[in-house]
Amino acid sequence: MTDRKPRDKSFQDFYPPSYSHCYGCGTANAHGLHIRSFWDGEESLAVFRPQPYHLAFPGYVYGGLLASLIDCHCVGTAAAAAYREEGRKPGSEPAFRYVTGSLQVDFLKPTPLGPPLHIRARVEEIAGRKTVLSATVTADSVITVRGRVVAVRIPENLVTEHAP
Amino acid sequence: MTDRKPRDKSFQDFYPPSYSHCYGCGTANAHGLHIRSFWDGEESLAVFRPQPYHLAFPGYVYGGLLASLIDCHCVGTAAAAAYREEGRKPGSEPAFRYVTGSLQVDFLKPTPLGPPLHIRARVEEIAGRKTVLSATVTADSVITVRGRVVAVRIPENLVTEHAP
Repeated sequence: MTDRKPRDKSFQDFYPPSYSHCYGCGTANAHGLHIRSFWDGEESLAVFRPQPYHLAFPGYVYGGLLASLIDCHCVGTAAAAAYREEGRKPGSEPAFRYVTGSLQVDFLKPTPLGPPLHIRARVEEIAGRKTVLSATVTADSVITVRGRVVAVRIPENLVTEHAP
Repeated sequence: MTDRKPRDKSFQDFYPPSYSHCYGCGTANAHGLHIRSFWDGEESLAVFRPQPYHLAFPGYVYGGLLASLIDCHCVGTAAAAAYREEGRKPGSEPAFRYVTGSLQVDFLKPTPLGPPLHIRARVEEIAGRKTVLSATVTADSVITVRGRVVAVRIPENLVTEHAP
């Protein structure tokens, strides 16, 4: 389940326009990372190929990028899980909008720069507006990073095309 | 203490060559963020101006960038604090090399995209190879993000110009 066809719709393809500018995962951000997340059974999966300049030191991936991958992938998973929980079609109105409340990243070992990174997330708990998710980053079949995200659902009117 | 002259030497200017490629703070990374950190009394300070494309949604800074700023600024502060602790000149050999063991980021409120961001860090504890730091991000005099980093000192021979 690692390689999706470009035409497959990711969680982020269903985001409302105001969320499509995100540097991490917005489809409309020309400079961004374009993280794309999909269901893979009960987990969600994003596959990401870092650029050669995304390094911490020679041969290893930059930690801030790894934090970014976990962040966007988990927030996307929180939104997708909310649709699934309510039995609604992804992207149907009113849209679910989540932001990151907190992000915890544990770097277990250096992540090699070269192989595609597999970012997996799992919903641990949905409690009202808050969704707690756990995540891993795997390179060459080795888990190098573990993450935990608290995603918070926000009212639709808090984000507009023209804020603040 | 917010605006340093370009010729002032930051913590990162004293990094050994193998650390100068970091996407977040390496002076030699042409694509990177070039985070620059300085002492400001007992705290350390970095001032960063996000690019217009560093957004989460219109008007607000991308969370992954904020995590990256805290990460690199704290790891740089850990190295600078180690030199200070030993009464050694910054950059003197053998060089201190720190990596991020864990990173916790709490997003208190959205961070406006526009004003320069002030990232402040403070050493909370130095315990052997581990240094614990707390950090804040301030925009327009309002603290929008709090962070906590455990930086870990690694032996010099673990990082080379040609790893892995």
